Amino acid sequence: MPHLPEHLLAGYRSFINGRYVAESGHYKSLAREGQAPETMIVACCDSRAAPEVIFNAGPGELFVLRNVANLVPPYAPDGEYHSTSAALEFAVQSLKVKNIVVMGHGRCGGIRSALDTTSAPLSPGDFIGKWMSLIAPAAEAVSASTMMTTTERQTALERISIRYSIANLRTFPCVSILEGKGRIALHGAWFDISTGELWVMNKETGDFEKPDIG
Amino acid sequence: MPHLPEHLLAGYRSFINGRYVAESGHYKSLAREGQAPETMIVACCDSRAAPEVIFNAGPGELFVLRNVANLVPPYAPDGEYHSTSAALEFAVQSLKVKNIVVMGHGRCGGIRSALDTTSAPLSPGDFIGKWMSLIAPAAEAVSASTMMTTTERQTALERISIRYSIANLRTFPCVSILEGKGRIALHGAWFDISTGELWVMNKETGDFEKPDIG
Amino acid sequence: MPHLPEHLLAGYRSFINGRYVAESGHYKSLAREGQAPETMIVACCDSRAAPEVIFNAGPGELFVLRNVANLVPPYAPDGEYHSTSAALEFAVQSLKVKNIVVMGHGRCGGIRSALDTTSAPLSPGDFIGKWMSLIAPAAEAVSASTMMTTTERQTALERISIRYSIANLRTFPCVSILEGKGRIALHGAWFDISTGELWVMNKETGDFEKPDIG
Amino acid sequence: MPHLPEHLLAGYRSFINGRYVAESGHYKSLAREGQAPETMIVACCDSRAAPEVIFNAGPGELFVLRNVANLVPPYAPDGEYHSTSAALEFAVQSLKVKNIVVMGHGRCGGIRSALDTTSAPLSPGDFIGKWMSLIAPAAEAVSASTMMTTTERQTALERISIRYSIANLRTFPCVSILEGKGRIALHGAWFDISTGELWVMNKETGDFEKPDIG
Repeated sequence: MPHLPEHLLAGYRSFINGRYVAESGHYKSLAREGQAPETMIVACCDSRAAPEVIFNAGPGELFVLRNVANLVPPYAPDGEYHSTSAALEFAVQSLKVKNIVVMGHGRCGGIRSALDTTSAPLSPGDFIGKWMSLIAPAAEAVSASTMMTTTERQTALERISIRYSIANLRTFPCVSILEGKGRIALHGAWFDISTGELWVMNKETGDFEKPDIG
Repeated sequence: MPHLPEHLLAGYRSFINGRYVAESGHYKSLAREGQAPETMIVACCDSRAAPEVIFNAGPGELFVLRNVANLVPPYAPDGEYHSTSAALEFAVQSLKVKNIVVMGHGRCGGIRSALDTTSAPLSPGDFIGKWMSLIAPAAEAVSASTMMTTTERQTALERISIRYSIANLRTFPCVSILEGKGRIALHGAWFDISTGELWVMNKETGDFEKPDIG
Repeated sequence: MPHLPEHLLAGYRSFINGRYVAESGHYKSLAREGQAPETMIVACCDSRAAPEVIFNAGPGELFVLRNVANLVPPYAPDGEYHSTSAALEFAVQSLKVKNIVVMGHGRCGGIRSALDTTSAPLSPGDFIGKWMSLIAPAAEAVSASTMMTTTERQTALERISIRYSIANLRTFPCVSILEGKGRIALHGAWFDISTGELWVMNKETGDFEKPDIG
Repeated sequence: MPHLPEHLLAGYRSFINGRYVAESGHYKSLAREGQAPETMIVACCDSRAAPEVIFNAGPGELFVLRNVANLVPPYAPDGEYHSTSAALEFAVQSLKVKNIVVMGHGRCGGIRSALDTTSAPLSPGDFIGKWMSLIAPAAEAVSASTMMTTTERQTALERISIRYSIANLRTFPCVSILEGKGRIALHGAWFDISTGELWVMNKETGDFEKPDIG
């Protein structure tokens, strides 16, 4: 017997009898002609911040990479496995996306663990510890801001890490060259799980501001 | 000025004025109490196969890792950066998910590139080439099956790679131990973009079958 | 000839022919019986953040101290002139207010000058420099957070200074004793000039959050 | 939970749903371009005499210092904290206001305490006693005018203190120099809480007269 958790089967039932019926033509043409998303989103695995939900996206609209804390490591052509770099390369070189958006969010568990220097590794491999060490210098600096509250430090690091990932995107030759030619644009965004507010990065200042959504 | 592509701002407008209004209470409690998803999904970045859409998932329901071709590398506590292993460790050890579902899909660009031995790397870093080499032995064997059509070979490798990722999940001590205790279950699924059909892996045989969704 | 700037005479004309007509009874009774405000507000002199406007307050409602950056210095019974302490003493001991609210705001010029260590004093007396030196340690710590943007550092210090002033309020015996008896409550708030949003301090965490205003 | 007195939340609700809606464009531009008030007002903390109400002032119009009895101490570059001098320095040197108005009012509690030589200090710090001692000589002289009624003595000292503060404004080099150049003007005003009348100081005579407001 094929088996899947009941909540997934129930959800799939709603999809196939509902949304799919309405969009089947779109799905069929996307299958026939292949995907051509204009935008890649680098988002977090967090169950409360799905890009397709926040951007009410339809099939074929968003190419989505999701890892813990939506981090983009710097360019490192060292022959190792780099799932983030692989997805980036595919989106930019093969799909030729026009936009890359790094979207962080409030209350991020990965960011929290980066600020929490006391707790033990989650497992002997300490994969989270190693992964979050990508932003260790920023985490240490923010942790030193003792007059800020825990939440204020968390939000600060969430936003610093988005700017850091955008800076790392530019270490990839394919990205920096296309950005130089004005053929690709890099964006930052931060989602507030509680209020549903989306804050967008101002490219001149790096600040996160609420866009005028009319 | 904060700036985001217009299609994202338009989508966000629909979310905040629509779905968020209906679910704001849920979002607020998820923010207050933290996420506690029962299920982790390992899916592909493909813009046509978003887990939240296919499973009609609400906020807090799915912890979602997305990389090219939904691959899980084998356990390798080598001190290198492993975004997939980090997400897995976080889901299992910190969130204590009850299910992990590896979901592949038809017409996967990553799988296609693994079967295409002729084309040049997408970039000097060849990150996709390295990433897909995780399933190189299977890709070569399938490519040798010259009596299968291109589409048959593609579908075959898509399904082999799902079984391969599930096998790799078991190389992580935290996963195998919890599976042994019956506290975590591993699943495979494959989504047909064209028909919207979801095929679910039979754990006894490894075959993909259409579940009875009533 | 008595003389006043024309914009003030024009504004007064609107008041006396408009709002005063509607509230004259209230003014007369407030004159006869004296003021009995429930709430004291410590606010900034900034022309964009008047408490009576933000709280749509009527005559007799708010006892308002305004100085640069809404600072409350620590208790210092040294026989010197302390206008802030004098106003606090009058509000608590003579008027017996039930609430004291320290309200800061975004883009505060006083806070900006505290973060700007390069510019020269505004005058030989350097009164602003001395006044803002009340929060010098916090200003230095925040200035060191170089991975935060200028605006992020500004907002951080604006909020730290509100918590600092509330802490200083408690150094006044009359305040701490009455707070201990539950007869006076201390609050923090931060006004965003651009969006009009009022953020209120959470007393448990010190964080600033948007209140549910129904 | 963020918490604020209900009367403030209710008032803020009226502001954000009413006046702010009408003036949001003005607030946004004031936030973007900074404040540039033409006029500084030195007023009393009294809850019945808010300058923004009496002058029906809009956002950005008035830079407002409020302390007990609207006093301006004399220039004293002694390295101590002087909140009044700091606000004055900021208004004149940084904002370059064109007018400074010292506005007193009837039934001022600070003035009353200055005339009441019998009662005990409000607290061990006696901050009000020290603050009001700034006008002690005048208070004693007025108290000696036994043929004036209590109300007459009160009004007399209220007006004397306004002239005294204006004189002290001229002890600040930055003020006297700019006044000499005709780039800043000093004004006195007195508000009658009961009748709503505004009396304006005649610069030649020092008398308070009702202006012709047409």
